[in-house]
Amino acid sequence: MLCVQQRERWSPWGGGGEGHSVPVNFLEVEGNQGLVAAVFGILFSSLCMLVLDKDPLPLIASSSQHNRGNAISRGPYWKIMALLYYPAFYYPLIACAMSRHQAGYFIGCLLSWCHCVVCIWQKVDCPQSPKIYRYYSLLSDVPLILCLVVLSIWYPVLLVNSFTQEKAAAKEVMCCSFFRIHLGMALLKGSWGKPLCPHYVPFLWFQVPLKLVISVTTAVIAVYQVALLLLVAFIPNIQIVRAGMTKEITVLLVQFGVIPSENAGGVPGDMEKELATVKHYLWSLEVCYICSLVLSCLLTFSMLLRSLVVHRANLKALYRGAVLDVFCHARVLRPSQQALVCWMSFASFQTAFTCFGLLIQQVIFFICTVAFTFLVVIPLHTNWNLPLPCLLPLARPFWLTLVLAVVVQNLLAHFYFLEKRQLQKELTNRRALCVVSYLLFPMNVLVGVLAAGWRMVISALYNVVHFCQLDISLLNRGIEAFDPGYRTYCHYLKLEVSQSHPVMKAFCCLLLQLPSPEGQPGLKPTDVEEGEILLLPSLPRKGLMRASKSKQTRTRWWLAYTLLNNPSLLAYRKAVLSDPTANGTQPCSARP
Amino acid sequence: MLCVQQRERWSPWGGGGEGHSVPVNFLEVEGNQGLVAAVFGILFSSLCMLVLDKDPLPLIASSSQHNRGNAISRGPYWKIMALLYYPAFYYPLIACAMSRHQAGYFIGCLLSWCHCVVCIWQKVDCPQSPKIYRYYSLLSDVPLILCLVVLSIWYPVLLVNSFTQEKAAAKEVMCCSFFRIHLGMALLKGSWGKPLCPHYVPFLWFQVPLKLVISVTTAVIAVYQVALLLLVAFIPNIQIVRAGMTKEITVLLVQFGVIPSENAGGVPGDMEKELATVKHYLWSLEVCYICSLVLSCLLTFSMLLRSLVVHRANLKALYRGAVLDVFCHARVLRPSQQALVCWMSFASFQTAFTCFGLLIQQVIFFICTVAFTFLVVIPLHTNWNLPLPCLLPLARPFWLTLVLAVVVQNLLAHFYFLEKRQLQKELTNRRALCVVSYLLFPMNVLVGVLAAGWRMVISALYNVVHFCQLDISLLNRGIEAFDPGYRTYCHYLKLEVSQSHPVMKAFCCLLLQLPSPEGQPGLKPTDVEEGEILLLPSLPRKGLMRASKSKQTRTRWWLAYTLLNNPSLLAYRKAVLSDPTANGTQPCSARP
Repeated sequence: MLCVQQRERWSPWGGGGEGHSVPVNFLEVEGNQGLVAAVFGILFSSLCMLVLDKDPLPLIASSSQHNRGNAISRGPYWKIMALLYYPAFYYPLIACAMSRHQAGYFIGCLLSWCHCVVCIWQKVDCPQSPKIYRYYSLLSDVPLILCLVVLSIWYPVLLVNSFTQEKAAAKEVMCCSFFRIHLGMALLKGSWGKPLCPHYVPFLWFQVPLKLVISVTTAVIAVYQVALLLLVAFIPNIQIVRAGMTKEITVLLVQFGVIPSENAGGVPGDMEKELATVKHYLWSLEVCYICSLVLSCLLTFSMLLRSLVVHRANLKALYRGAVLDVFCHARVLRPSQQALVCWMSFASFQTAFTCFGLLIQQVIFFICTVAFTFLVVIPLHTNWNLPLPCLLPLARPFWLTLVLAVVVQNLLAHFYFLEKRQLQKELTNRRALCVVSYLLFPMNVLVGVLAAGWRMVISALYNVVHFCQLDISLLNRGIEAFDPGYRTYCHYLKLEVSQSHPVMKAFCCLLLQLPSPEGQPGLKPTDVEEGEILLLPSLPRKGLMRASKSKQTRTRWWLAYTLLNNPSLLAYRKAVLSDPTANGTQPCSARP
Repeated sequence: MLCVQQRERWSPWGGGGEGHSVPVNFLEVEGNQGLVAAVFGILFSSLCMLVLDKDPLPLIASSSQHNRGNAISRGPYWKIMALLYYPAFYYPLIACAMSRHQAGYFIGCLLSWCHCVVCIWQKVDCPQSPKIYRYYSLLSDVPLILCLVVLSIWYPVLLVNSFTQEKAAAKEVMCCSFFRIHLGMALLKGSWGKPLCPHYVPFLWFQVPLKLVISVTTAVIAVYQVALLLLVAFIPNIQIVRAGMTKEITVLLVQFGVIPSENAGGVPGDMEKELATVKHYLWSLEVCYICSLVLSCLLTFSMLLRSLVVHRANLKALYRGAVLDVFCHARVLRPSQQALVCWMSFASFQTAFTCFGLLIQQVIFFICTVAFTFLVVIPLHTNWNLPLPCLLPLARPFWLTLVLAVVVQNLLAHFYFLEKRQLQKELTNRRALCVVSYLLFPMNVLVGVLAAGWRMVISALYNVVHFCQLDISLLNRGIEAFDPGYRTYCHYLKLEVSQSHPVMKAFCCLLLQLPSPEGQPGLKPTDVEEGEILLLPSLPRKGLMRASKSKQTRTRWWLAYTLLNNPSLLAYRKAVLSDPTANGTQPCSARP
């Protein structure tokens, strides 16, 4: 019964009795992760174009040319239509791969080539567009074209592989062999090397879930698209402003006091130097913008990488059953409505959070770099009297006093208020401590103001930098669940772990592919029916039971051993095996 | 040996052999918490005046009148001097109380009356000052005067009490009686009601540490001072601007498009209506400012109250020995240099963080209320076409679509993708799930953008609201220690708990005040010497030992019982009682 249920869940042939050509269960297939991720990349790239496009649907565009007013009022509706249209439009690309049939691969080849050729031809034919920046449309389509190229190569490879039948068969059982290695290692460790530590399952090889691959792919595309948009919206414009800067505008700026000038009257004739200064400032702004953008992108990428590492650690911990290592309090790893909805939207949320996080980072870092440049770097170079360098010498005695107060307190604490008694430090000179504590109270308030400033800066910076990481809650312990990102992540993990424990998968694969005693190479997908009957305790099929006695015994032994080493799996069995007659040779600890 | 050490630590007479008239150990006295807090309040009020004053020192002011230029350049140095001068200036006020002598109380009376009369007379004589707002100086001195009034009443009461000798004696042992009740309760619970649960000490009565009382007092004064400063810096000025608003300025504002006008030309003659609008807007700004200030103050007060509750819970947990309930990882509760420095600056940090937090809250809430007023409330009242209400109907289809997408996903998850099998839900229709997850990907990205916005808002709001709470880290689990506020709090707790465990205090009091078998009422402070000898195992004073045999046995029994119920105290004994000959009748569990 358990096995039937599990096989239905994780069978690599799409599950169920409908055979192995149902082109829909693509989110659970381990073989073609790259292909699925590429299609999601295409989908997200289309979505990005959609946001700025005035004609979201390709066929509606021409018809709405003559009644423009009506088209604008209907714009939102067309965009909503487009949100549903694009997934449907690219659906055949993904469905062809999941058919696992030569015909499907062939159609996939044709489709992907068509898409690719049309897209590249469009761009070659008309590389410039009036949108924002003339090459923006071309540059923003780069990920789309790349994903289409990946598909155009992937499909032919699949097709060629499908012609060599042996290879295809080998590929089909590949995913099972991984799990088998897993299970083997788990069992070996249990019987040989270590004592039967209940929370220990060694993982030689870790498989990233497909949903995660998709989310990282779309997040990387999101970073590219947002960075591109930020770049083309600012740099060309400021370059135009810099090129068009005249002496008249410089005079105005000097009169408003924005630019320092030795030429107090502001005569346009001899403003050469001031004009150069203005151009230099504009160039500095440009440099600041590009620096902050590069910094934001690098930080976002590194956070995405870190996110993957954390994902891996969390999944491993949850597979081991160490729920408290991942979540703050115990959770039941079971599918629920919330978990399901969060699982569905996980990749989208990761993408959206990456976009948003990059935008915030860019804004914050740009402000910081501009402030640093114009308050520190430029005044230092030009000896221009800006407020910060003027205030610094005035405030220097204060800084020195505060530093002195902190140093004095530390020295006193170390040498005067603490004494070492038999390996541990003890408080001494308590009266002096109290007097010092009273006398330094005003100093410490000023130190506290600095600490408060630092607290604000560090917490804001932390939140901005980690914004795109869903695996971290930006709120405090206890109210972590109010963070929508972290909540989604937790529920996603719950569902992912409850549906794809590798030992469970390995066990199911083993059951389905055990070499039968008659000398057959292994169970075929069509033997699923038999497997079901074998392990269905409620149906007493005596004849079949007798025929596969040794197989069944071995199976149960594997099961018992697995459960002994992975007690976290027991939870899945409790309800299923509530009937005590279902248990065969299982030891006591594995009983529900 | 243990007792000697502990007595030295917590003796209510200032500790040590110097007797009981050393006026310095005031930070550890439980009796006059209010008095000490009042003096700290006075000190902080002086500090507040200092920040804005140009003449920080009272005597320097007149002499620096004639050479103003020199005085300004020396301003910072005078201010630093003042930071040291004021604590010294008010030191006698606190020292008199701690002398525990009638003469001290008498001088305290005189001093506090002098200060109080001088201060009130100054304010009555000259209630207005040219600083910021004419009554600012008067209003900002209110906490100072209140604290002085508290002192002027407290000292006479102390003096009167000291004349009635019995009362004074009763007062002197008061703090001990509390601890004795404690210990009694702890022991009763152990022997009667419950089984000897090792981590259970019931606390009928909880004593707030003096440092906490000081920090809350100064924090409340800080809230008052910052709120007052914010109020008088903005409201009088904007009222002046509102009163002085003329039609000419209104015309300018209309021309810049700040104010809507039906009178497009901007003729000054018929600008009555626009002038009223401008005045109404300024009045709205005023209302927003006051509302946000009230909100910030209320929030800060409630957070300070919450902070006290958390302090109490944390201290109780640490007294119980439940370190992991308070800190994320195990910590040794021992004095260290860092802990000592943090303990010294805890009250100052709490005060500074409250100031800073209130400022940030005011800025954020003011922006929010102004945005709400001018984007929602006023346009709704006047039908003025501002961007937000214009954009809302345009975006309405989008909102509806997103809501619809979320609702559809939830409904599908509930009714279609989950099925109830034997008490728990199982995933079903996995193919449809994958298709829905793919088709709704673009929708979910848009939902994710909203969620990201919500994440930003909620995390910023959380950090702003909880800024003044030191007991909460604004950073994530794992890097909590980088938050300077939380770090200070943790170290403060460590030192506070290691130095003032109530059972330890109770035990010391019992030892010092046990009725001796000779019929004496109890140990007097001068009997400390004897107590030291009694429990010093390294000196074999046979005669004394024999004379107080029953007392010693009883003492050891109390000790054993206490330790049995509070294993967290064992850590303090390990090093001290390393000599095995020191142990008498102690049970095995209490041995080091």
